[in-house]
Amino acid sequence: MSLLIKKGLVANPRKGKPAMGRQGSSVRINAGSGYVVGVDIGGSNLRVALADMKGTLLDKWSASTKRTSSPAMVIDQIRDGVDCLLKKASVSRRSLLAVAAGAPGITDAETGVVVATSYLRGWRNVPFRRLLESALHMPAAIENDVRLAAIGESWLGTARGIPDFVFLAIGTGIAAGIFANGRLVHGADSTAGEVGYMHVPGTPLQPAKPGAPGSLESTIGGEGIRQQWLRTRNGTGNASDREVTATAILESGCAGDVPAAGVLNHSAQVLAYAVYNMSLVLNSSLFVLGGGVGMNASLLHATQRNLEQYHEPAPPKVIVSSLGQDAQLIGAIRLALDKAEERIGLKL
Amino acid sequence: MSLLIKKGLVANPRKGKPAMGRQGSSVRINAGSGYVVGVDIGGSNLRVALADMKGTLLDKWSASTKRTSSPAMVIDQIRDGVDCLLKKASVSRRSLLAVAAGAPGITDAETGVVVATSYLRGWRNVPFRRLLESALHMPAAIENDVRLAAIGESWLGTARGIPDFVFLAIGTGIAAGIFANGRLVHGADSTAGEVGYMHVPGTPLQPAKPGAPGSLESTIGGEGIRQQWLRTRNGTGNASDREVTATAILESGCAGDVPAAGVLNHSAQVLAYAVYNMSLVLNSSLFVLGGGVGMNASLLHATQRNLEQYHEPAPPKVIVSSLGQDAQLIGAIRLALDKAEERIGLKL
Repeated sequence: MSLLIKKGLVANPRKGKPAMGRQGSSVRINAGSGYVVGVDIGGSNLRVALADMKGTLLDKWSASTKRTSSPAMVIDQIRDGVDCLLKKASVSRRSLLAVAAGAPGITDAETGVVVATSYLRGWRNVPFRRLLESALHMPAAIENDVRLAAIGESWLGTARGIPDFVFLAIGTGIAAGIFANGRLVHGADSTAGEVGYMHVPGTPLQPAKPGAPGSLESTIGGEGIRQQWLRTRNGTGNASDREVTATAILESGCAGDVPAAGVLNHSAQVLAYAVYNMSLVLNSSLFVLGGGVGMNASLLHATQRNLEQYHEPAPPKVIVSSLGQDAQLIGAIRLALDKAEERIGLKL
Repeated sequence: MSLLIKKGLVANPRKGKPAMGRQGSSVRINAGSGYVVGVDIGGSNLRVALADMKGTLLDKWSASTKRTSSPAMVIDQIRDGVDCLLKKASVSRRSLLAVAAGAPGITDAETGVVVATSYLRGWRNVPFRRLLESALHMPAAIENDVRLAAIGESWLGTARGIPDFVFLAIGTGIAAGIFANGRLVHGADSTAGEVGYMHVPGTPLQPAKPGAPGSLESTIGGEGIRQQWLRTRNGTGNASDREVTATAILESGCAGDVPAAGVLNHSAQVLAYAVYNMSLVLNSSLFVLGGGVGMNASLLHATQRNLEQYHEPAPPKVIVSSLGQDAQLIGAIRLALDKAEERIGLKL
């Protein structure tokens, strides 16, 4: 999937953007006055994007993170990406105004610290914003990756201008980026939206063990769906069974394979309970699904059919993200633009 | 339980008050400059309180609502209460600056309309704010009763100054008043916090029928707890069994009665799931329990023991309201003060 912002495509990208706790600057921003960098640190790839102050994408760069683990290695990779993008676009380093990056795990956007990452990296209390600022010599902002995707959806996605909505990412992990009253909800310890631990009918009854997937995630996260399916094989599974993906299982279920249909139906029921529970708490206008599992059309349709039964107070509206894998990178650009505008505002 | 604000007790009642979406007035408010009225419309009683601009309670009045049903009857009762309070306190009508009232059911605070009440009254799209303003000749504000209690808790209760917390009322019905980022969450259609419909392990699997109690409410609402207990009597219940209250059952369970202990433990487990699910969505610092069932100490302690097992990301903190039945009335006074300050601000 390609980035949806093309050069010149977004005439007025700020239209309908909800306030994100930032005072609007009265400064007239000129697209020629500077550039920003957005960074998406994913499980398998790190992506860097260069955009002008209108939010128009100039170019993007990516690299594998398979052999990248420590914060210093990630910072080096980001610097490589920025250097490459500046050179290709013939943009001077001094015209870069801000950078924003999404980090997986518990991220304190206010202090700029990655408190904890749950898997792969194992970071603990990493002052990632300060590291970025030192390496790139410009103001930086960081945010949890799923919340960054919610910012992207709020700016240029289907949730554009909607003050109360949820972006729900379902892939290997499950988490939500929540907007209420037009603002991101971080919660008391920056863990708002960690709904992978939610308990609904049909998920395990026991609390999650430290570091282990939560009740909801172990049922309808990518690995959870695979495990549901392997249980239907009742020990008769062969090697190819063990390599099947969650989305392939959901597709087989939709195509009529009986055991896979059981997995699809159970997953859709469990997801419907989780979405309904969230909608009761927040009364969000919209749930935008993202992630490899969340964007599966068969799961979406089966979940929507389940949700149609919930009339009190009203059935939640669920759709699939229009930005897809680019939501986080787009959110990073928006956050970097906010940071840059704040900087320009302060200079005057 | 008596109202906790006594004359002169609250030296600086606004201390630590989170912003409620209102621009702070720079006007210096003099306690002698006017008065406000707060109204709590409950299932069995209607209470009216008179306070000065420091938030100091002068007096309160109450009347049974057993024979009060239509909006006009409720307005008449409020007018009687206001007349009585003004006379007793020797306060002139013209020094009343604002009134605020809590209404049970779905209440649109912005338009001032009670959209629907679920039981007892059966109101539909009642322009209650306009009716109050016409009857009392002063600016009025209305809010859902549970959200009003949350405002009370935020102002003078245990949640004072906490930007992210939940007030959870469990009585005949179940609903939550939610603060996130220091502001009340109303949601897209003013139904945020209708968590009585939540599905967790141990509650009915089917969606609620229109007008019927939701899955969570039918299990741990007052009547739900009674029904759980009657099922343990297995048809052998006598007349006194049928009259037993939810709190009496919870107390018997705590005292060692085996069937009642089963009800207590199941209710505490279900409540723990519900609180944990809400905490995953919102990452609230605190859950304040209110309502006849919610304030039961046996249920609180059993629920806290369950919640201690949930370490991912952290066990939610649950306490019982310190304001008790007065939370709504205190919230109504706070809302009326906001309205009055807005009015004084506009006059300058």
